[in-house]
Amino acid sequence: MDLSSFLTSLATSFIIFLLLMLVFSWLSKKPGNNVVYYPNRILKGLDPYDAGYKTRNPFTWIQEAFSSTEKDVICISGVDSAVYFVFLATALGILVFAGLILLPLLLPLAVTDHGKSNKTTSNGTFTDLDKLSMGNIKEKSNRLWGFVFAVYWFSFVTYYLLWKAYSHVSDLRAAALKSPEVKAEQFAVLVRDIPAPPAGQTRKEQVDSYFKALYLDTFYRSMVVTDNEKVDEIWQELEGYKKKLAHAEAVYAESKEKGKPEGTRPKNRTGFLGLIGAKVDTIDYCTKKIDELIPKLEAEQKVVLREKQQASALVFFKSRLSAASAAQNLHARMVDTWTVVNAPEPRQVIWSNLPKQFYSRQMRQYVVYFIVFLTIAFYMIPIGLVSAFTTLANLKKIIPFIKPVVKQDALRTVLEAYLPQLALIIFLSMLPKLLLFLSKAEGIPSESHAVRAASGKYFYFSVLNVFIGVTLGGTLFSTFKTIQKSPDDIIPLLAKSLPGNATFFLTFVALKFFVGYGLELSRLVPLIIFHLKRKYLCKTEAELKEAWTPGDLNYATRIPGDLLILTIVFCYSVIAPIIILFGVIYFGVGWLVLRNQVLKVFVPSYESYGQMWPHIHTRIVAALILFQLTMFGYFGVNKFYYTPILIPLPIFSFIFAYVCSKKLYRSFHDTALEVAREDLKEEPDMEFVFKSFIPPPLAAEKPDDDQFEDALSQISRSASLA
Amino acid sequence: MDLSSFLTSLATSFIIFLLLMLVFSWLSKKPGNNVVYYPNRILKGLDPYDAGYKTRNPFTWIQEAFSSTEKDVICISGVDSAVYFVFLATALGILVFAGLILLPLLLPLAVTDHGKSNKTTSNGTFTDLDKLSMGNIKEKSNRLWGFVFAVYWFSFVTYYLLWKAYSHVSDLRAAALKSPEVKAEQFAVLVRDIPAPPAGQTRKEQVDSYFKALYLDTFYRSMVVTDNEKVDEIWQELEGYKKKLAHAEAVYAESKEKGKPEGTRPKNRTGFLGLIGAKVDTIDYCTKKIDELIPKLEAEQKVVLREKQQASALVFFKSRLSAASAAQNLHARMVDTWTVVNAPEPRQVIWSNLPKQFYSRQMRQYVVYFIVFLTIAFYMIPIGLVSAFTTLANLKKIIPFIKPVVKQDALRTVLEAYLPQLALIIFLSMLPKLLLFLSKAEGIPSESHAVRAASGKYFYFSVLNVFIGVTLGGTLFSTFKTIQKSPDDIIPLLAKSLPGNATFFLTFVALKFFVGYGLELSRLVPLIIFHLKRKYLCKTEAELKEAWTPGDLNYATRIPGDLLILTIVFCYSVIAPIIILFGVIYFGVGWLVLRNQVLKVFVPSYESYGQMWPHIHTRIVAALILFQLTMFGYFGVNKFYYTPILIPLPIFSFIFAYVCSKKLYRSFHDTALEVAREDLKEEPDMEFVFKSFIPPPLAAEKPDDDQFEDALSQISRSASLA
Repeated sequence: MDLSSFLTSLATSFIIFLLLMLVFSWLSKKPGNNVVYYPNRILKGLDPYDAGYKTRNPFTWIQEAFSSTEKDVICISGVDSAVYFVFLATALGILVFAGLILLPLLLPLAVTDHGKSNKTTSNGTFTDLDKLSMGNIKEKSNRLWGFVFAVYWFSFVTYYLLWKAYSHVSDLRAAALKSPEVKAEQFAVLVRDIPAPPAGQTRKEQVDSYFKALYLDTFYRSMVVTDNEKVDEIWQELEGYKKKLAHAEAVYAESKEKGKPEGTRPKNRTGFLGLIGAKVDTIDYCTKKIDELIPKLEAEQKVVLREKQQASALVFFKSRLSAASAAQNLHARMVDTWTVVNAPEPRQVIWSNLPKQFYSRQMRQYVVYFIVFLTIAFYMIPIGLVSAFTTLANLKKIIPFIKPVVKQDALRTVLEAYLPQLALIIFLSMLPKLLLFLSKAEGIPSESHAVRAASGKYFYFSVLNVFIGVTLGGTLFSTFKTIQKSPDDIIPLLAKSLPGNATFFLTFVALKFFVGYGLELSRLVPLIIFHLKRKYLCKTEAELKEAWTPGDLNYATRIPGDLLILTIVFCYSVIAPIIILFGVIYFGVGWLVLRNQVLKVFVPSYESYGQMWPHIHTRIVAALILFQLTMFGYFGVNKFYYTPILIPLPIFSFIFAYVCSKKLYRSFHDTALEVAREDLKEEPDMEFVFKSFIPPPLAAEKPDDDQFEDALSQISRSASLA
Repeated sequence: MDLSSFLTSLATSFIIFLLLMLVFSWLSKKPGNNVVYYPNRILKGLDPYDAGYKTRNPFTWIQEAFSSTEKDVICISGVDSAVYFVFLATALGILVFAGLILLPLLLPLAVTDHGKSNKTTSNGTFTDLDKLSMGNIKEKSNRLWGFVFAVYWFSFVTYYLLWKAYSHVSDLRAAALKSPEVKAEQFAVLVRDIPAPPAGQTRKEQVDSYFKALYLDTFYRSMVVTDNEKVDEIWQELEGYKKKLAHAEAVYAESKEKGKPEGTRPKNRTGFLGLIGAKVDTIDYCTKKIDELIPKLEAEQKVVLREKQQASALVFFKSRLSAASAAQNLHARMVDTWTVVNAPEPRQVIWSNLPKQFYSRQMRQYVVYFIVFLTIAFYMIPIGLVSAFTTLANLKKIIPFIKPVVKQDALRTVLEAYLPQLALIIFLSMLPKLLLFLSKAEGIPSESHAVRAASGKYFYFSVLNVFIGVTLGGTLFSTFKTIQKSPDDIIPLLAKSLPGNATFFLTFVALKFFVGYGLELSRLVPLIIFHLKRKYLCKTEAELKEAWTPGDLNYATRIPGDLLILTIVFCYSVIAPIIILFGVIYFGVGWLVLRNQVLKVFVPSYESYGQMWPHIHTRIVAALILFQLTMFGYFGVNKFYYTPILIPLPIFSFIFAYVCSKKLYRSFHDTALEVAREDLKEEPDMEFVFKSFIPPPLAAEKPDDDQFEDALSQISRSASLA
């Protein structure tokens, strides 16, 4: 790719971004679109527009984003969102601090040298742009000392800001856990791997007597996890008919208003997908079905509670301190029985995973790791091919009929700029669902943990495939013979091929931030879907709300995506310092756009109190180590005699990672007692805490008829017998 | 070494053992020696001889050893000793079960083949004995299948018995911790890394308020660790003068009885070592010194308790459950503050290590590891030389004047048999003290933990230096040129040199068990020292008791020693199966002799409730993996095509180690709550529990004047002010 196609790509991206921003400010002003652009505020019961900014111009959202504080974010979107901004701010901070030194230092060094302009890496990507990179420095040049200093500076800036961020997130987490509000999950622990109950005892009696003996004063009661598959099915069916009934009634009411005063009663077929079977009156049919299903559900609820108890339970304590302590203690001698961990939030419990046994979980984990490994290895091949086809020159050879298209200059430039990146982005969008599914299959008990696990897998996938795969793939295709020499040459090969692919990644980053964030901000896709649904499908208020209810930030793909960009920028920061500018724009625009989205759009679907942070932290350090290793290799390739001067850096990074995890990690896994000790605003309503964990299909229809009392009464009966 | 010198060596060892056994049965019958042969029983207040065996013959001790149960051992010597026997029995069990298959299978296979009799390893050790080893099998022979089967059989026997042993030890530990007896350490936790107290609070107030807030109901009181260096010095001096006074009074009384009725008052000089300075009357001098020191001690005790408080404390709870739970909980968010761990037994607390700070401990650990690494690497050289000189042929060349000695046939044989082994044993006896000192310097809070750490270091040392060092050293010396080829050849080289050194290790093991255990049993050295002391030095009862008080089992060297033997036997078990016989005798005789010693002689100096076991277990598994890897190498050297069939074994071993540590290890680190929950025989006397932790130099002279009350009263004062 030459300079002109690169600039074209940049310009197009920027124009698209500007357009999308204008579209956003125009659309978001229309009150009919409020539910698309301000759903989070509406759901929180707030006015869509902030009181301070009544007069709105296209840049009001930017003002609002800048003036919002971390406290606002925590208040409206939770600690997890705030932690995500800590991540964005830290990435931005690292790049700004590093860039302030690296750009004025390295660019002049590179431009004024005339090293290898002719004998550069082989695939012909050497252009004016490359004059700004380390590839322009002569071999063995003393100017390389400047680049060595840059690597050190970059590393220490990263250590410093990461350390500050980790401490800050730890404070945020502690503050949230200390909060005087009653949070149900802080009063409960999750117990798994319960051994078979002794003869003559029910599961519930067993759990109650076990924990009563250990926590005499603070034990409240327990909830044995049940096999809800069947009751869940009935409940889903019932809810379906309820929705259908509401919809049919709305249609009927509408028809009365519109046409005949007696209206048209909606009809449907009872068979497969409403296509076959007898035609029936929908309202009557649904009412009948609902009347049938309610007693069936109640009967099944009773059966489930009595007979489908599993080897897992939630145990409730009267104090946060007891629950926090219980979750850290070894209860039984054998680690694979009576496993006790912190309870997840009620809304993020993955019920079906709770009864999975210890060894089953271990086995599942390894099987999943193996499958993920295969996935990563398997995708290597297509990604390698994609990157090999990236140059149109190659495409022309393989698909001759593309020639006329390529002849047109403008089109050719655009194609050349975007084709490979588009292929890559589409490619990557296929994977996240699979990874989340696999992570859940490991037996993880909470949604947020599963998301973290999926995010980790996705990160390995992206770094291995996109970064290393593209870099090596591109070079391998051009210098195919090198691979035959020896597998030991992989690291120098990686180092050699880095500068050649710098422009690829520059455009990749640019595309991501301008087009990605433009689409994010303008919410064109959700807007269109909402209006279509509102017009043709939604009849009731509930249906309408469902149509505009936004998702959450989707950390499972967002964070690995950002981390991939960060890894790329890290690795190229010294080789082609101009990428730092792109990184700054990516994280700066990202911070701005997402600040808007978090405050106004996204509704978090769970709260893990920043448990994502150690995960992010480790991966940033990993990116840093990768950067340090490639730099070591690259200096070696440049035949710089003092290359070993870089050896201490990866060692520092490992020590840094070790100290951080040693000092700060445990409080992200366990709740420190001095945090759990803090007083509450009021005595907790334990009945409310308990009820918030009852899964909806088991919640009794009539509020006074608490199914769970049944189970409790068994205990008092057995206690009176004892 | 040829067959005759090997047999001579065996015979001499055996005769020495028989002689020592006879000496033992003769000497142990004399009542005057009871304190040497039955000190443990005497200290426990038992009759030296068991009631059941009044008529004693030379084999009574064997009968007694066999008839004793594990319960007896726990009762008289504690769980640690019982765990040591589990280790011996497991080692014995593995070798017996393996031997039952391996000996009848492999010996015939080896004897009836005539593979490499002439082209064996180069250093001329191939003798009749080697016909029994795998070295006698032809290359690529199908008979090697038998040896493959043997490796598998050996591995699975080991897994099975190790698993049983681990569960059994876990039961022993739980039973001991559940015991209804009050054990002071179960009611206390050790708190380290306490941050600086807030202004206006003493250390003690800080600790008390911190733990009172968290454990409102069960907190009893705390004991802040103090800097005892000076008070300890004064106390030592005082105790020294007290002993001297008692001695002088005994001498004076004796002189009255013997000669003049007024007696001779003993005198001494006050200067250096009693050699210079003014001559004074010892009784008067000591009395004066004691009168001076007592008020000095009391003053210093007050100063220490008030002003020398350190950033560490022992915190006492009213229930075992609370203490067990507290030791597992994260108290402060930062892991490097308020570190809480189980309290060690009072008698094994290393007081000076308690106030060491978190990062200081970490740094010390790495520094110590580095020093140990240097030690291991440094000793490599002398051990290599020793093993190279082992053959007399070499010695003759280097020290010509040894020739006339060597000419004498009998002497030559004995020398040839013992010289290298003796050199090795003397060599190894120099190290343990250094390693224990280094382990304590790491900042470990308890004696038993330091012993475990030292034992681990000693094991690495022995395996690396003795086993691998001797094996490689011997071969390197003879085939010195091979090392120049390539460092990659180390593993095949190790495998090649194994059979050549088999006889060396056979004699090494034989010497260890016959002479070592003979000396152990007969206790000749302690006996002689005791009688000398009694005759010439001891005047008072206390001095006499000090003279015969036995040591403990000394796990720090005993266990690595046994593990070294086990590693050697493991590695040679298939190559030269005859070594299994020797291993069986070593562990069999060891079990017998030590059963006697544990029941009658050794007095354990601490009790760690079997925490040594995971340590032993890991090292047995490591030995097994080393065995599997060398066998893999050795089959490769024999050009056996199906060698890869051995690859799964090390993987199985890793999985086995992982499962064991996952399932069973944590209960050796933390006390499971269901174990700590067990009821006590009686309400614990908390004042007694507290006092048992007061270090002797701080214990008040007068029982009613409790120095610690001072500190406590400070608290009640501050509480009343609040």
